[in-house]
Amino acid sequence: MNDSLTEEVRKQRKTNYDIHPLILNRWSPRSMNGEELSDDELMPLFEAARWAPSSYNAQLWRFVYAKRQTKFWDTFVDLLLEGNRAWAQQAAVLVVVTSRKLFERNDKPAATYAFDAGTAWENLALEGTRRGLVVHGMQGFDYEKARRELYVPENYEVLAMIAIGKRAPKESLPSHLQEMECPNDRRPLDEIIVAGCFGSKDRS
Amino acid sequence: MNDSLTEEVRKQRKTNYDIHPLILNRWSPRSMNGEELSDDELMPLFEAARWAPSSYNAQLWRFVYAKRQTKFWDTFVDLLLEGNRAWAQQAAVLVVVTSRKLFERNDKPAATYAFDAGTAWENLALEGTRRGLVVHGMQGFDYEKARRELYVPENYEVLAMIAIGKRAPKESLPSHLQEMECPNDRRPLDEIIVAGCFGSKDRS
Repeated sequence: MNDSLTEEVRKQRKTNYDIHPLILNRWSPRSMNGEELSDDELMPLFEAARWAPSSYNAQLWRFVYAKRQTKFWDTFVDLLLEGNRAWAQQAAVLVVVTSRKLFERNDKPAATYAFDAGTAWENLALEGTRRGLVVHGMQGFDYEKARRELYVPENYEVLAMIAIGKRAPKESLPSHLQEMECPNDRRPLDEIIVAGCFGSKDRS
Repeated sequence: MNDSLTEEVRKQRKTNYDIHPLILNRWSPRSMNGEELSDDELMPLFEAARWAPSSYNAQLWRFVYAKRQTKFWDTFVDLLLEGNRAWAQQAAVLVVVTSRKLFERNDKPAATYAFDAGTAWENLALEGTRRGLVVHGMQGFDYEKARRELYVPENYEVLAMIAIGKRAPKESLPSHLQEMECPNDRRPLDEIIVAGCFGSKDRS
């Protein structure tokens, strides 16, 4: 439960401004050992997600999940595209993130249902990082199949999947994934902020 | 730059599982003192956003911002709906969060462009919280006007606004907002997680 930079992150990531080490420590390892997680290990991640901000505090996110060796495990594994399945089947828990597209109080469209679910996901990822777990978000799965197999209601959108598990040495991975098993970099700050308005740079 | 619960949060928020204090300390105050922020005070928040995870590490989020007493300030204030303008005009910085809907490498739809921007926003909010700033997300503004006035390209979606500023006592607020000036609560955990699949409970 560290509040200082991990060695692997310190080597790979440079910042121009001091930020909380927890934020920089979060990255997306793939190597997991296939062990299960107890509820005491898993639930704090959902608890962290729970405290995310949302428009009108509507909290429209819903995390559908399966632990290893439960009835739904194979269903979740089978949602993954092959590239992700190769490593993510070693997870302890697989999660499908969904969010309700309409406010519950009036069934009007919620402009930020996906954006807000992203905030909850980041809290989950940070709490997992704090606990030394692998927490890896994925777009590489069959969205329509997820809707069908998990009976996701029409009013909800399927947004992403998450693999959660205990870390293993990178040597546990298929060889082509081993060289990617380190914290990645980011664009320069000036590519993601715009003072004033678009147009001074061509951003189309 | 605390790593323990603030007094106001300790009084208002209870969790079933231990989570990082930074996550619980984040809430959305409205009372700000109208002072400016220097780049050294502001940029760490964008730096934190920069390190968020995203699908294919595409980082499609773009934060368009105006500081007080810059040319674009009035334009940003005028985007806000009246209820938000009443307090948010005391901010030091207003931000319009946008995200590119297509990957840059192939112009194919990016399924998680809004979701990923939400992760970046949460990092920004947490870093601001760590620094004792007000960081308040808003849906209450004119999305179409934002697109028009800030020349947001067709390929980008306008997602949310953010007010950032230095905190003031709640007595600085209009009286009807003073009673809301405390950390809010959340749904129970079992309303946002679903083991297995939808359907065991009616969630339509």
